[in-house]
Amino acid sequence: MKAIVTVNLKNGVLDPQGKAIAHTLVDIGYPEVQGARQGKVIELDLADGTPKEKIEEMCDKLLANPVIESYSIEVA
Amino acid sequence: MKAIVTVNLKNGVLDPQGKAIAHTLVDIGYPEVQGARQGKVIELDLADGTPKEKIEEMCDKLLANPVIESYSIEVA
Repeated sequence: MKAIVTVNLKNGVLDPQGKAIAHTLVDIGYPEVQGARQGKVIELDLADGTPKEKIEEMCDKLLANPVIESYSIEVA
Repeated sequence: MKAIVTVNLKNGVLDPQGKAIAHTLVDIGYPEVQGARQGKVIELDLADGTPKEKIEEMCDKLLANPVIESYSIEVA
């Protein structure tokens, strides 16, 4: 089975990488860009039947920093 | 309007970061992990009515490296 984990910075946490993306897009000719935030997406290949709680544990322990990041899990 | 751009390495392109994640998860007690691949997700804040073609252009020019990465766009 596959699980897609999306990790984003929490609202209010400064995101310099996202800011750089937004500024650069405006600079190269896309004034319609008002902002950008960057996160990461991790596609996990898991043994069939892995419970979602296990994936949440992995997020809390390794994949995300719960202090500044939030995550969502999509089991495919 | 918002657009979510997901950028992943193409199949066959080596992903050392994903490998490191998979190995570490196994090491810390999750043998059900068989593999992992890491990509990035960019949430764009755009002026209303920005056409999808414009977003594709941004991906080709800045957000993704079309040689080794593929992307998908989701307009929300």
